[in-house]
Amino acid sequence: MKEYASRLMSRLQSTEKSEKADAVYITDPYNMRYISGFAGGEGALLITQERCVLITDSRYTEAAQNESDFEVIEESRKHRREAILQEICQQQAVQHIAYEDLHLTCAAFAKLRKALPEISSWIPAGEEVNHLRRVKTAEEIALLQRAEAIGDAAFEDLRKILKTGMTELEVAAELEYFMKKHGAERLSFETIVASGPNSSMPHAVPTDRKIQRGDFLTMDFGCCYHGYCSDMTRTVAFGGLEARQTEIYETVLQAQKTALAVIRAGITGEEADRAARDIIEGAGYGECFGHSLGHSVGLYIHEDPRLAPGAEDVLEPGMAVTVEPGIYLPGYCGVRIEDLVIVTEDGCRNLTSSPKELLIFD
Amino acid sequence: MKEYASRLMSRLQSTEKSEKADAVYITDPYNMRYISGFAGGEGALLITQERCVLITDSRYTEAAQNESDFEVIEESRKHRREAILQEICQQQAVQHIAYEDLHLTCAAFAKLRKALPEISSWIPAGEEVNHLRRVKTAEEIALLQRAEAIGDAAFEDLRKILKTGMTELEVAAELEYFMKKHGAERLSFETIVASGPNSSMPHAVPTDRKIQRGDFLTMDFGCCYHGYCSDMTRTVAFGGLEARQTEIYETVLQAQKTALAVIRAGITGEEADRAARDIIEGAGYGECFGHSLGHSVGLYIHEDPRLAPGAEDVLEPGMAVTVEPGIYLPGYCGVRIEDLVIVTEDGCRNLTSSPKELLIFD
Repeated sequence: MKEYASRLMSRLQSTEKSEKADAVYITDPYNMRYISGFAGGEGALLITQERCVLITDSRYTEAAQNESDFEVIEESRKHRREAILQEICQQQAVQHIAYEDLHLTCAAFAKLRKALPEISSWIPAGEEVNHLRRVKTAEEIALLQRAEAIGDAAFEDLRKILKTGMTELEVAAELEYFMKKHGAERLSFETIVASGPNSSMPHAVPTDRKIQRGDFLTMDFGCCYHGYCSDMTRTVAFGGLEARQTEIYETVLQAQKTALAVIRAGITGEEADRAARDIIEGAGYGECFGHSLGHSVGLYIHEDPRLAPGAEDVLEPGMAVTVEPGIYLPGYCGVRIEDLVIVTEDGCRNLTSSPKELLIFD
Repeated sequence: MKEYASRLMSRLQSTEKSEKADAVYITDPYNMRYISGFAGGEGALLITQERCVLITDSRYTEAAQNESDFEVIEESRKHRREAILQEICQQQAVQHIAYEDLHLTCAAFAKLRKALPEISSWIPAGEEVNHLRRVKTAEEIALLQRAEAIGDAAFEDLRKILKTGMTELEVAAELEYFMKKHGAERLSFETIVASGPNSSMPHAVPTDRKIQRGDFLTMDFGCCYHGYCSDMTRTVAFGGLEARQTEIYETVLQAQKTALAVIRAGITGEEADRAARDIIEGAGYGECFGHSLGHSVGLYIHEDPRLAPGAEDVLEPGMAVTVEPGIYLPGYCGVRIEDLVIVTEDGCRNLTSSPKELLIFD
């Protein structure tokens, strides 16, 4: 893992910023895990030209030593983090520290500056640290594939028991239980289960509403495997749909398939989004697709680059992105269909294998 | 909910800071929920002398309008948050904005300042906003009680199936399933299930290690009900314990009971912590209790005040705190026992009813 630390230091030294960092302070738990291997989430890294230090408290020191090849220093009331940082900075004559301005709070940064008055400059790292994580390695892709397969298996289990009368909360409980049984460590985000009119809220929280005939049921769910997140959405139906509902479903499906056909290395996030949006706008539902087409996924569920209007980032092979168009009509219904794919030179590899044709349950 | 907004404005106006805020910008999702009623988590509040505005995007506007009595304004690419804030500030002649420096990132704050150059001062709110949430109302306590009862019911279900050979991950899956079945909306934190030597890591992540005879099994778990968090820890044993293990268990239990007997309005967090720590130190395990005795709980799982060395906050009736001493011996075993209690004038009311005597399974 020290390899990532030295790659990060090189990136920070090669920027065009006037001051070059001679140390970097990492507090984002995902970056901490990526760079050091430590999965506990509580603590910080200080990387200098010569030392890779992981600071955490007594709850995590044993795990940190097992998981990371960094030098672990325990912080406590008697040996506070600021004192540890100061000792290292002094010993290594650190002058310029890069910090994660996208993660560090104003209050934490103010405290840090006050505790380390001898540092001559603090350099906001911006996207530099997150950037390391954009293109996934083969090992990371294997973990994403495994996580997504757990989601597929859970959805297969769920289809055997899904029926009208179940509440949204019950459906969520079953899906989550199945994911855990298939090896999920934890959820990658709070499961969304939305039925009938609730399905028009893209981020609905499951309620005790019972599923009825004529409902759409949208399920957006994911889990983590060795830290890597899965993400998928399926919308299914229960008996007697209106013709308009079927038309909406088919429009979303066509938009999703069109985007999948377009995604490849070299196009921008905006171009991917546009491909799906054109279909939805063409069907007259442009105003009903308020969110963006997708986002990257890795250790964290919402990473960059995005597939969205205005997203100028060019897709690269090894990026992992969701493709999730939707149509939402408040008070009536909503449909979203989402796969997780890996961008390749000439297209994309779909990690999701759950069926997408409209499934109708009793 | 506008009542909380006006209470907050009064607090901010009555501080001794030289500049009085005439608006407050809220981005912490728990504070946003507490103050506005909106549970979606994505968005921001701007409260001025005359307006209570909730800004969120199209994924959440419908839910926001249902949940909150604030004026909802939708942010989008065409009408960005900064533009919305600027319009309101201009209309209301806002000069001094209080912001949540404990939540806002350095990057978000820099962007905000740049977008609103006409604001003459930005006032870090520090603990002022969180402070509103310290003492729970009767309604909040009822929700905490309900959440904790769900945990109790799940632990009761679990006891019927717990046996050697189950993996830590299976135990976590079952506990979480039972909580959902009993009405949990979501987990309040990632479930900790640690067996045998893993139990010496206070924040162990569940693994596929199978439970064996002679193991302690520590389970620290919680869920949310209407947003309010439960939190409890129980440690159970499987067959043939060594005498030293039993002694450790009894020491932790005695420390926990001693702290419960001491907690009341008027004592400090440090005094509560000290009561438990004295017992553990007296038994010769002082070095093995590396974390603090407890923390407050509400919409968020770790709130202030803490029960910890150096915690000078005085407990008040209506505060909800965990009481969770532990002893951890790396490579050997660990024990933690935790209840959630409400501080009262003359003691505390325990919301947790699961048994604490040492339970031994086959």
